[in-house]
Amino acid sequence: MANRDLNRALRFTLRGTAAAVSARSGVLDLAHGRVATPAFMPVGTQGTVKTMTPRELEEAGVEILLANTYHLLLRPGPERVARLGGLHRFMGWPRPILTDSGGYQVLSLTDRVGITDEGVRFRSHLDGALVELTPERALDVQIALGSDVMMLLDVCPPYPSSPPALRAAVHRTQAWAVRSAAHLGAVREEGRLTPAGRRPGAVFAIVQGGVDLDLRQAAARDLTALDYPGYALGGLMVGEPKTATFAAVAAVNEVLPVDRPRYLMGVGAPDDIVRAVGAGVDLFDCVLPTRNARNGTVFTRRGKIVIKNAAWKDDPRPIDERCRCYACANFSRAYLRHLFHSGEILGPRLATLHSVSFYLAMMAEMRESIGDGTFARWSADFLAEYAAGEAERRERLAAGRTAEP
Amino acid sequence: MANRDLNRALRFTLRGTAAAVSARSGVLDLAHGRVATPAFMPVGTQGTVKTMTPRELEEAGVEILLANTYHLLLRPGPERVARLGGLHRFMGWPRPILTDSGGYQVLSLTDRVGITDEGVRFRSHLDGALVELTPERALDVQIALGSDVMMLLDVCPPYPSSPPALRAAVHRTQAWAVRSAAHLGAVREEGRLTPAGRRPGAVFAIVQGGVDLDLRQAAARDLTALDYPGYALGGLMVGEPKTATFAAVAAVNEVLPVDRPRYLMGVGAPDDIVRAVGAGVDLFDCVLPTRNARNGTVFTRRGKIVIKNAAWKDDPRPIDERCRCYACANFSRAYLRHLFHSGEILGPRLATLHSVSFYLAMMAEMRESIGDGTFARWSADFLAEYAAGEAERRERLAAGRTAEP
Repeated sequence: MANRDLNRALRFTLRGTAAAVSARSGVLDLAHGRVATPAFMPVGTQGTVKTMTPRELEEAGVEILLANTYHLLLRPGPERVARLGGLHRFMGWPRPILTDSGGYQVLSLTDRVGITDEGVRFRSHLDGALVELTPERALDVQIALGSDVMMLLDVCPPYPSSPPALRAAVHRTQAWAVRSAAHLGAVREEGRLTPAGRRPGAVFAIVQGGVDLDLRQAAARDLTALDYPGYALGGLMVGEPKTATFAAVAAVNEVLPVDRPRYLMGVGAPDDIVRAVGAGVDLFDCVLPTRNARNGTVFTRRGKIVIKNAAWKDDPRPIDERCRCYACANFSRAYLRHLFHSGEILGPRLATLHSVSFYLAMMAEMRESIGDGTFARWSADFLAEYAAGEAERRERLAAGRTAEP
Repeated sequence: MANRDLNRALRFTLRGTAAAVSARSGVLDLAHGRVATPAFMPVGTQGTVKTMTPRELEEAGVEILLANTYHLLLRPGPERVARLGGLHRFMGWPRPILTDSGGYQVLSLTDRVGITDEGVRFRSHLDGALVELTPERALDVQIALGSDVMMLLDVCPPYPSSPPALRAAVHRTQAWAVRSAAHLGAVREEGRLTPAGRRPGAVFAIVQGGVDLDLRQAAARDLTALDYPGYALGGLMVGEPKTATFAAVAAVNEVLPVDRPRYLMGVGAPDDIVRAVGAGVDLFDCVLPTRNARNGTVFTRRGKIVIKNAAWKDDPRPIDERCRCYACANFSRAYLRHLFHSGEILGPRLATLHSVSFYLAMMAEMRESIGDGTFARWSADFLAEYAAGEAERRERLAAGRTAEP
């Protein structure tokens, strides 16, 4: 029976295969619109997906993006964003936004952290101010931003962590999920609205447990009992072997309710996403396509391309001849290389545009192949081509043929 | 009678007032298309107008842009650009391009310069390589780039310069213009084409002479005798008082043939451009809208706005409520300020987009008002509003009310 304290500001409709640990496609209806799943969310850390306009994001096929509560909490602050009409209006993005809780970045970006049962305390990396984030405050900030999908505050232990540390993280995460449910009940009771005058967004709980499959499954069962409308897998792809990652994904997905969206946080490279979709994951976010692009590395069907390489000096071909993005339709590898070597902003711009477009096209192909029952074949082909391209690139690199910048 | 050695790869048709020193509108037909004048050329130094795509330039109304021969000569080199089909294809810009000769930037950017009657020698600011630029080589490079309008190599003396130095610069510039005409004859004789298979572009000569009106007029007369299809005013707005600048513009325009386009190089601020159009100038280029935007200062009808100012912290208004650019249609001053304070590339992007759009809209209004005979009124209104806005800004600055960043 549904927990009436939890705001169900989403509707999730499965379309494709619906077994627990196989690829599935669906539709996620949120306050600001519809998201076809499996979906990839580009990361807009500070209220902008670095280098891109909302128009370009929409043209690339983006239907939902992620914004970081930690960064927006510190600058410009949720009160200011709320006064300006909420995050959607502030950044000019009309479609859904998922916000993280801020907890992960507190752990990875700040120096002095105190974690207690109450919450986390840290000093701002901007001005050293002491800030506290509790499960309740994390939700309040996300409501003030006007998020479509809010994430619960959790404890994400590093890899490797001792079994007691993993268990403690799971227990605290569960306790915070219970407190969060109570807080959401109170928020609902008081009739609080977002800055845009809507009911607060949907909330996802986060399954921790490292690579301990039993602990992961127990954590997933305990959270499922709280009846959240969506679940995330946190604390994966943080250094553990990939076999362990995918074993954990499969184990958790066996336990999570089939009718709720599943979000694998912070993943990942194209081949990892394809494998995770095959294991029944619906949502992804990652800085790889945007961050790598700014450093001059872009993704293609045949793996990564390092734009600055001397190999492209006179190459009139686009980054990816099968890509339909604005960058590939109009510019050569030689020009992109020139832009990066000249320190021109248009270089990172076009590289980001390509890689985000590539990721989104990959997700669209997966949805289509799941829909027509050909995902297994599509996935095998994609992974084979990607691996072959990467192997070639590593060979060239080893042979030093592209080492000259 | 026309000098048959000079390639006339342009047609210039005056539409508005055609007196020597009053505002005029016209149409400049070049190899890659039509340019309505008076026109502003954004500067694409290294084969890109910094932060902008060609699509954004076209949407802003840009019909011609400027590229710097000096920078492209050093990187990626004219041979490479030619192999890749010429500068238009290289940078994905289908419309006209004017290239400078490289001479000005040799003087302003390089350390060791030797100027002789033969040409200029300098060391690359990139790798210290010794490079020579002669009047002939400057044209050859511009032909290899596939420029629509090429500029002659000239000598641009600093301000102030002694009368002998000014006269020497004018004489050398004239001698080089004579040699250039002979070289263009040879190029024509050999049937040389651009990388795109076209005949080489049109060529403009440059009038020097500092603020010595007699010397300027003599220089203009001597160059006019060579019958170039267009003329530029060089060496102005380099530190001299503005009254001297506009006296020089007026003096030169009295002498230049009415039926040839006139280009005031490196100018300028919006009010300076409006005044120069009033004095009969047709073409402008300047880094102000793009460079200032990257530093967070944008142009409006009421003068400059410094985006980082604390005054805009909670301001939901766009940069300029009368502007129709993508930045003004979608984003607040508060958001722009957040982007600049957060070091986000989207900040310089949107600021540049606005300022270039503002310049181009200003040029379009001038063409229209010249066409319907209302330029004098339009110009007086524009200059009054711009001056009033700038006076207010300076007052606020003096009062320290916008000093807090």
